[in-house]
Amino acid sequence: MQQTNLYTVTVLPMLRALANLSGLVDKAAAHAEEKKAKVEQLLNDRLVFDQFHFTKQVQVACDNAKRTAALVAGIENPVFEDTEKTPEELKARIEKTIAFLKTIRPEQMVGKEESPIAIYYMPGKYLPAFEYVVDMGLPNFYFHVVTAYSILRKNGVAIGKGDYLGKLSYRDTPAS
Amino acid sequence: MQQTNLYTVTVLPMLRALANLSGLVDKAAAHAEEKKAKVEQLLNDRLVFDQFHFTKQVQVACDNAKRTAALVAGIENPVFEDTEKTPEELKARIEKTIAFLKTIRPEQMVGKEESPIAIYYMPGKYLPAFEYVVDMGLPNFYFHVVTAYSILRKNGVAIGKGDYLGKLSYRDTPAS
Repeated sequence: MQQTNLYTVTVLPMLRALANLSGLVDKAAAHAEEKKAKVEQLLNDRLVFDQFHFTKQVQVACDNAKRTAALVAGIENPVFEDTEKTPEELKARIEKTIAFLKTIRPEQMVGKEESPIAIYYMPGKYLPAFEYVVDMGLPNFYFHVVTAYSILRKNGVAIGKGDYLGKLSYRDTPAS
Repeated sequence: MQQTNLYTVTVLPMLRALANLSGLVDKAAAHAEEKKAKVEQLLNDRLVFDQFHFTKQVQVACDNAKRTAALVAGIENPVFEDTEKTPEELKARIEKTIAFLKTIRPEQMVGKEESPIAIYYMPGKYLPAFEYVVDMGLPNFYFHVVTAYSILRKNGVAIGKGDYLGKLSYRDTPAS
């Protein structure tokens, strides 16, 4: 049975969402190839002119995932430079993030609800880890994943909710 | 101290996000008024032609919140008809959803990780409540909230990440 704790509600869904995001990058690459268009144009597209482009949405989603996990676990948050230009590089960035998340052991995060998480964009301020995760880390992570998804949808990439949610492990209801 | 459990990781952030969404509806109404345009055009706009319009995104976000909470709590999921046409009606829908979520007591959801949640769109299948919440309920809820937000951003409504995340309760770091 899966317990509900700061590890299982962050690292597990982030691993899922990042794997799904990697699948979206594949679909973007396939779409550009099918259209005989430069994939860079798709990766550089945005929903709105003053929002991040697709590549940056993916980078920021990765950063949100590793930052949230690292801060709650109390371990160093590795810096990944934003150098990705191609689908392959973006997928490698996602893989690197997944690999980092997998180094975290549940016991590094479980029970840390009250640990103060210093707010990097607001020196001198902190949030207890529970609030950091539930009010900021997770909603912000999903924000960038959904926006990346929407940029592809806008451009006619053949994706749907199933690509965003990923495969769910449905069980058969026992016959009554 | 806030414990991490199926109530605190669902109902609490959903209450926050729904309140933020209500604020977005206000900003949409104010934007249309400022532009001397019909707010209905904004509420009926979509990111992509075959996605839901803003009003439906809000309705579905509300439905996701109450369905997730009701299914895990094992109580009846009230049906809210999709009749909203105006900002005021949309805000009332959100309020009604918030009011429903507030009727749920933590003890109705805590410890229900293994409870089978029947999948309404896939008869004969279920997910354990933990997976339903973490792999589907929450990501799907955020999907529709973020998409609603993006529809407004696309239309030049003056909103930013702060409107999506809402006010965070930052604490002052004690002087060392």
